Amino acid sequence: MDFAVLTIFPEMFIPFWENGIIKRAIERKYISASAINIRDFTSDRHHSTDDRPYGGGSGMVMKPEPLYEAVLAAREKIPDAKTILMTPQGRPFKQNTAHALSKERGLIFLCGRYEGVDERICQNCIDYEISIGDYVLTGGELAVMVIIDAITRLIPGTLGGQDSAEKDSFSTGFLEHAHYTRPRVFKDEAVPDVLLSGNHKEIEKWRLETSLIRTFLKRPDLLKNRCLSQSEKQILKNWCSEIENIIQTQSVSCFDTLSGCQ
Amino acid sequence: MDFAVLTIFPEMFIPFWENGIIKRAIERKYISASAINIRDFTSDRHHSTDDRPYGGGSGMVMKPEPLYEAVLAAREKIPDAKTILMTPQGRPFKQNTAHALSKERGLIFLCGRYEGVDERICQNCIDYEISIGDYVLTGGELAVMVIIDAITRLIPGTLGGQDSAEKDSFSTGFLEHAHYTRPRVFKDEAVPDVLLSGNHKEIEKWRLETSLIRTFLKRPDLLKNRCLSQSEKQILKNWCSEIENIIQTQSVSCFDTLSGCQ
Repeated sequence: MDFAVLTIFPEMFIPFWENGIIKRAIERKYISASAINIRDFTSDRHHSTDDRPYGGGSGMVMKPEPLYEAVLAAREKIPDAKTILMTPQGRPFKQNTAHALSKERGLIFLCGRYEGVDERICQNCIDYEISIGDYVLTGGELAVMVIIDAITRLIPGTLGGQDSAEKDSFSTGFLEHAHYTRPRVFKDEAVPDVLLSGNHKEIEKWRLETSLIRTFLKRPDLLKNRCLSQSEKQILKNWCSEIENIIQTQSVSCFDTLSGCQ
Repeated sequence: MDFAVLTIFPEMFIPFWENGIIKRAIERKYISASAINIRDFTSDRHHSTDDRPYGGGSGMVMKPEPLYEAVLAAREKIPDAKTILMTPQGRPFKQNTAHALSKERGLIFLCGRYEGVDERICQNCIDYEISIGDYVLTGGELAVMVIIDAITRLIPGTLGGQDSAEKDSFSTGFLEHAHYTRPRVFKDEAVPDVLLSGNHKEIEKWRLETSLIRTFLKRPDLLKNRCLSQSEKQILKNWCSEIENIIQTQSVSCFDTLSGCQ
């Protein structure tokens, strides 16, 4: 996979290429990555990449010519690449977008800055518009790093553990289970016994349960979009029974007290 | 606003502090920002910050002790700060989260890495868990930069144009309108006439219209959660009339042709 990033802040990418899995993926030639300075494609003395907006108003707009030339140059380097504009207007990026994009041969990212990019570039040079979330950033640079990171870790071999990516939050449709490491007791709080039992079936069951309950408590919206397996349904049914038990064992006086408070 | 970031990759933050609005905000003392190396709070010879998970499985888990000490040290520097863990399990970060967090006195961010953070840290040291989107990253560092960027640009004075942030996508509840700058004609495509008219009322109307139609086409979900003003409703009604006109002016033979294709 070849990545090219068109930006006016190429220096922001230096430590990103040089740390963690991105560094390893580049060294092992799973990916190639470069940041191309849009200023190199300006023709005026001041190397301007922005200009005032037609129709007035505050802020500046990225000029179309340097962007256009930069996209052409990047396409010459990576002929099969799709061109992506990072913009809050784009399609929301999700884990399945990362999976889909990880199958591409190459990706060219255009980082918007200021108020945005001249509309004619959006209309004519861009394959996909992508947003990493419903918030506004000063530029597309961080968003591109987020996407390259999310994609790269899905490329087989880039992560240390073989199946690390398969069990991640969202990859299974649930949030991931709770994690514990040494020490066994930290600030008076012990690791759950089941994790020390050596019983792998019980451990898997406990992990699925914590995964399900976390998703239920923190992100119930994720459960609505997912078909549940028999064992997953059974966990939910067990909870219902437990909750019903709690309700049934409440004494009448307890309910009286509660309703007295209202 | 004081930011402290607890990370095992502090060097990733250097160009982030030194570019764009973050640099300006630090220089003008709107914010202070530092990256604290979690390794400085390890006690073993190898400065380990991770260990194998209880219960087995691939990947590593961040050890509780160095994280705990690092959080205490950061709280000493910024006593009023809220502590935030970056995790895909957290509450989804949105533009209104950025607005809310921009009112805090200080924020301490804990960057998870590997499979995640020991659950006892999540339970006992963290005020908020935040996720920047439904995708998995190799670490919290990029997510922290995204959040600091989104918050900082909301602090008055940090952006160049006075009202730049108020008209952004999501700040109004809509996606932002289209932007154009010079040249007037680029690759045979001209800037819309209205933007050259000098008629500010008409320009505002055009911008509201493009803003609404972009939101309708790209992110209809945003319209469902928003009360529309009279003028916004009028724009939608006008579209309906236009669409109805198109339908009514279709000749009978045209419909015949269409149904013939089916």
